[in-house]
Amino acid sequence: MDLWFYERNIVPGLSLGLEVTSTVHSEQTEFQHLAIVDTKAMGRVLFLDNIIMTSTKFEFVYHEMITHVALNTHPNPKKVLVIGGGDGGAIREIIKHPRVEKAVLVEIDRRVVETAKEFLPEISCGLNDPRVEVLYQDGIKYVQEHQNEFDIIITDSTDPIGPAVGLFEKGFYESCRDALKEDGIFVAQTESPYYDVNLLPKVQKNTRDIFPITKLYLAFIPEYPGGCWSFTIGSKKYDPEAADLSNWPNYPTRYYNPGIHKAAFVLPNFVRELIK
Amino acid sequence: MDLWFYERNIVPGLSLGLEVTSTVHSEQTEFQHLAIVDTKAMGRVLFLDNIIMTSTKFEFVYHEMITHVALNTHPNPKKVLVIGGGDGGAIREIIKHPRVEKAVLVEIDRRVVETAKEFLPEISCGLNDPRVEVLYQDGIKYVQEHQNEFDIIITDSTDPIGPAVGLFEKGFYESCRDALKEDGIFVAQTESPYYDVNLLPKVQKNTRDIFPITKLYLAFIPEYPGGCWSFTIGSKKYDPEAADLSNWPNYPTRYYNPGIHKAAFVLPNFVRELIK
Repeated sequence: MDLWFYERNIVPGLSLGLEVTSTVHSEQTEFQHLAIVDTKAMGRVLFLDNIIMTSTKFEFVYHEMITHVALNTHPNPKKVLVIGGGDGGAIREIIKHPRVEKAVLVEIDRRVVETAKEFLPEISCGLNDPRVEVLYQDGIKYVQEHQNEFDIIITDSTDPIGPAVGLFEKGFYESCRDALKEDGIFVAQTESPYYDVNLLPKVQKNTRDIFPITKLYLAFIPEYPGGCWSFTIGSKKYDPEAADLSNWPNYPTRYYNPGIHKAAFVLPNFVRELIK
Repeated sequence: MDLWFYERNIVPGLSLGLEVTSTVHSEQTEFQHLAIVDTKAMGRVLFLDNIIMTSTKFEFVYHEMITHVALNTHPNPKKVLVIGGGDGGAIREIIKHPRVEKAVLVEIDRRVVETAKEFLPEISCGLNDPRVEVLYQDGIKYVQEHQNEFDIIITDSTDPIGPAVGLFEKGFYESCRDALKEDGIFVAQTESPYYDVNLLPKVQKNTRDIFPITKLYLAFIPEYPGGCWSFTIGSKKYDPEAADLSNWPNYPTRYYNPGIHKAAFVLPNFVRELIK
């Protein structure tokens, strides 16, 4: 059977097709449609509302890059919060860092965590670590209820549609600032500089209004449209570009290294213009 | 009409779909099928044998990155050769450099140049410059017949199928070495480190066997599978990573800048492993 899945029009007029070797799981959760399929090009793939979230072949890039840049900028990242990220990939990376004592995952959709544990063990494997607490709550409410508590907050969200809309709004960034300690760092995935040319300047402006240091960095994410993905850091004290990485803990990674940490902040001219 | 073109299986199990707003031109040339269509996501797109070659929306990345890294590594790039690249985009970039006195384009398929001139004027506009010579010949034969003549040779080829197969072989690299002056630089597009994991190590090895300095660099190319594209430099004398860019001519670019020049050589761990 020649079975193809097409992720259509998440960028208008663009479609990514994946040949499916077997369908693993599919359900309508309280919040979204969730599917897991095996593909020829990307290994096992998790879809939410028919959009590719992660794949076993390439997930290392996104999960390393959304975590290790901030973790190695902060001199003592003891307590880390992840909003979203129910597949567990960000958590798996966070607990590689020897200084992390506690990682909290706040995922609105319990079924994402449960299906990741069942069908994506290589991604979700960190979720049972004793340093990890998993909460099934609205991340926006959670940060509103916490003050001066975290060293790092990471927004590992879907695109700004469905349950994730509020995670791209200024009010949420303000709550994150308040939930961070006085030298805390906020990181969010902020879409493609090639295709999401309206969102990116807005997010940068919002972050700049709230955090004294705001920086954009890029990574090669083959699962996402265009393959070029951006992350925004808002930091209260430490400049991620100036981080001293000479003594980074040097745990195993497949994408991240100290050179990549610095190079990811070097932006092409058109991206500089976009966020000016 | 809901009209979509699908570039299927250039990576097994992967397909890129583009919504077509109008078809502009289509023909079978002596060498390949050539089509030009207008798309919603990428502007006007040139296809050869149903594979996306370039698009008016994003071509600046590929064309700047295949040219300016070598041009700004060599202290005096007077004479530059492009093999392939019949759309003219590389030539347009090369003649931005004030030290270039002569640029030779050797394209095997005359119809690529002619249709680019007719339908892609913003890409092909440099081809009529008085410093530019366009020859319709086999690039492999051309380099064999020239010795010690060029400061830079750029292979702006299609994938290693059809007329471009020979452009990825060691004999061709040897001919390029001999056609370069004693301090010359060779550059080639060398596919994706995510998907072309067999080709890339082979090309690196071949280049290392022939040139004293071999380096790989990366760029975000949204038209190509995975969006992460590699270029290989073989250099007789100048290390592109050590280039002094403090006095680069600073002509207008949309992607390239001196920071990008250096950052493009910083490789993720998995790419370092791949070409080790």
